[in-house]
Amino acid sequence: MADQPVYDFGSGCTNPETFPTTALAEAATRAIAIVGEDFTRYPGDLGHLGLREVMAAREAEREGVPVSPDHIVLTNGSMQGVTLVAEALMTGVGEDIVVCEELTYSGTIGAYRRLGLRMEGVALDEDGMRPDDLERVLTSLRKAGTPPRFLYILSTYQNPTGSVMPRARRLDIIEIACRFGIPIVEDNCYADVHFDGAKEPSLYALDPEGTDHIYLCSISKILGPGVREGYIHARPPMLQRLLERRFDGGNSLLTASVLAEFFRDRLWDHCAAMNGPLKQKRDAVLAGLQESVGDICTWSRPAGGLFIWVHLPDDVDIDHLLRLTYEGGVRCARGRSFHIHGEDVQNIRLAFGQPTVAAIRAGIPVLGECIRSASASTRREATAAG
Amino acid sequence: MADQPVYDFGSGCTNPETFPTTALAEAATRAIAIVGEDFTRYPGDLGHLGLREVMAAREAEREGVPVSPDHIVLTNGSMQGVTLVAEALMTGVGEDIVVCEELTYSGTIGAYRRLGLRMEGVALDEDGMRPDDLERVLTSLRKAGTPPRFLYILSTYQNPTGSVMPRARRLDIIEIACRFGIPIVEDNCYADVHFDGAKEPSLYALDPEGTDHIYLCSISKILGPGVREGYIHARPPMLQRLLERRFDGGNSLLTASVLAEFFRDRLWDHCAAMNGPLKQKRDAVLAGLQESVGDICTWSRPAGGLFIWVHLPDDVDIDHLLRLTYEGGVRCARGRSFHIHGEDVQNIRLAFGQPTVAAIRAGIPVLGECIRSASASTRREATAAG
Repeated sequence: MADQPVYDFGSGCTNPETFPTTALAEAATRAIAIVGEDFTRYPGDLGHLGLREVMAAREAEREGVPVSPDHIVLTNGSMQGVTLVAEALMTGVGEDIVVCEELTYSGTIGAYRRLGLRMEGVALDEDGMRPDDLERVLTSLRKAGTPPRFLYILSTYQNPTGSVMPRARRLDIIEIACRFGIPIVEDNCYADVHFDGAKEPSLYALDPEGTDHIYLCSISKILGPGVREGYIHARPPMLQRLLERRFDGGNSLLTASVLAEFFRDRLWDHCAAMNGPLKQKRDAVLAGLQESVGDICTWSRPAGGLFIWVHLPDDVDIDHLLRLTYEGGVRCARGRSFHIHGEDVQNIRLAFGQPTVAAIRAGIPVLGECIRSASASTRREATAAG
Repeated sequence: MADQPVYDFGSGCTNPETFPTTALAEAATRAIAIVGEDFTRYPGDLGHLGLREVMAAREAEREGVPVSPDHIVLTNGSMQGVTLVAEALMTGVGEDIVVCEELTYSGTIGAYRRLGLRMEGVALDEDGMRPDDLERVLTSLRKAGTPPRFLYILSTYQNPTGSVMPRARRLDIIEIACRFGIPIVEDNCYADVHFDGAKEPSLYALDPEGTDHIYLCSISKILGPGVREGYIHARPPMLQRLLERRFDGGNSLLTASVLAEFFRDRLWDHCAAMNGPLKQKRDAVLAGLQESVGDICTWSRPAGGLFIWVHLPDDVDIDHLLRLTYEGGVRCARGRSFHIHGEDVQNIRLAFGQPTVAAIRAGIPVLGECIRSASASTRREATAAG
């Protein structure tokens, strides 16, 4: 086996083959000339106005609602948004609780855990967070006298399961959160990494009067996580509450101005140019899975995002599987990384942004063989022991 | 009066006249071509290797000690370092206490206050933090059973007082902190903004075996705070303890790679080119003060940094003075902003990076007149009331 992974389906990186190096360098030349001596001053808590304008237009055009650049706060990737929001909404009085899908983004789980937030999980199905279970959890917390500080939710391209919540369910979720009086923190960091069909509106767009909505988005995922640029959308007075917890002197004018110049007048063309090849990669993974494990596994067919969530046969020992995949040069993410309490689930997550189509076509059969071996060997062991 | 400040001595911004726009744009073109598809991946917790190498060399050359790029953590300005370190060292068990100069950087005070850290102040003199008072404070905290989590100190170009701590006192401070077993967090964000005489070594360089030293530095102040780039230097195991509290996915490869290309092979020439004009500005402020208020005020003569700390006559009512300066178009920072408990002090801080020499020559006499008026009117009011 090689020291380096040969088939890397591990983390949510974007497509290196379509990275627009030349255009980004041209944007940098323009941006630095425009900003010039403004680099000698602080960017303010909201950050570079030009990028906020471009991102407000992005939101307004995608969601069909007016979005003010003054309600956009630029952050160091969407992860700074995840953390800043949690810190602002935590009280430190008693136990701070957040309600979220019981399977959610591993980065958020790690941050919440280390911040000391207790996570209460809501069951998911193929349409995302289940309203009936949300109501059950919130009722139970209310009865216990421990209301949560906020609801964290991935309603579009849910990570890891890939689901997109239908509109009717979105309205149900908003109604329940509103009735229980808890802010909704909606993480839409894969917005516009979209392949099939119409998009559902974001929760904040479905509730334009709701001042408790907080929306997190990213520029990293339509370009590259190396640029570390995301944003929060929030309306006053919630906006002010978040800014009061910001101590970092603001977001880099250098990164932000370059991205503003890059995306201005080019955002949707850029997304289309990125999404075409990504869709081919997704389809290559789906075809490879069908070919190699179609008889024993099931998996998501996400309309967007960068991940496919594979359900393994019950008889697969995941520790054993991951040893085999490691030896075979295949990297993927273990399901339990996405469980809020680290419980094992019979899944793996495949990220398809980084590998080439050729690598996918070669790598998925290797993965399939590993799954079959892990499944067969588990059965053999069970037989031997039985 | 104008709506906009005419004479802006308010905040620690750098010199717009010497901002190297063209060279930065050229660096961006090179950097983006080099990084290319690496932008599609995460930068890691330490950040861009190239910039860490350039900054490790900066430290090693300034301090005369070996510095590993693997002990440098890139941050979103030095303020992310200030906050990250505090969060990592706080325990949340009982009251978290930090010991610092009783006059210190206002941004740090704001961050610590909102993080819930209790600040215990140590007296300063013209050589910085006083070791005898540090010993008194630490002894008192030990007796009370409430040892501090760390010591935060600005030993070079102290903000706001401008002092540079002599070497013998640095060794005393290290000895005391070591004896009481508390980590030293040294903020050297104005490093290399230097005008006169030899530099004293940083505390970490005086104690190369000490693994509890944490050192914060910035690139913002030798270029511009708009770029928001700073770094932490720490050695294992302290380094690991800090990284465990980092949740933001790392520092932008875009900003960092551009700065790496810009500063590589140019750092000291760049600093010299920035410091010459800044020294002229500092000298213009000093000359203006001598001319206009030499008979009634005293002030610091800092060897580096961007600030002059002016002690006002005892009979000046500062509220009244700030009304007059505002009307006169002069902006400066009020002394109490730098007191850890917000107590009033008979000082103002003048930042000299932004205004031109001509604006300084015109503005300082306006400030001087305001001080004289505030002083005279206070006397008149006192006379009328007496």
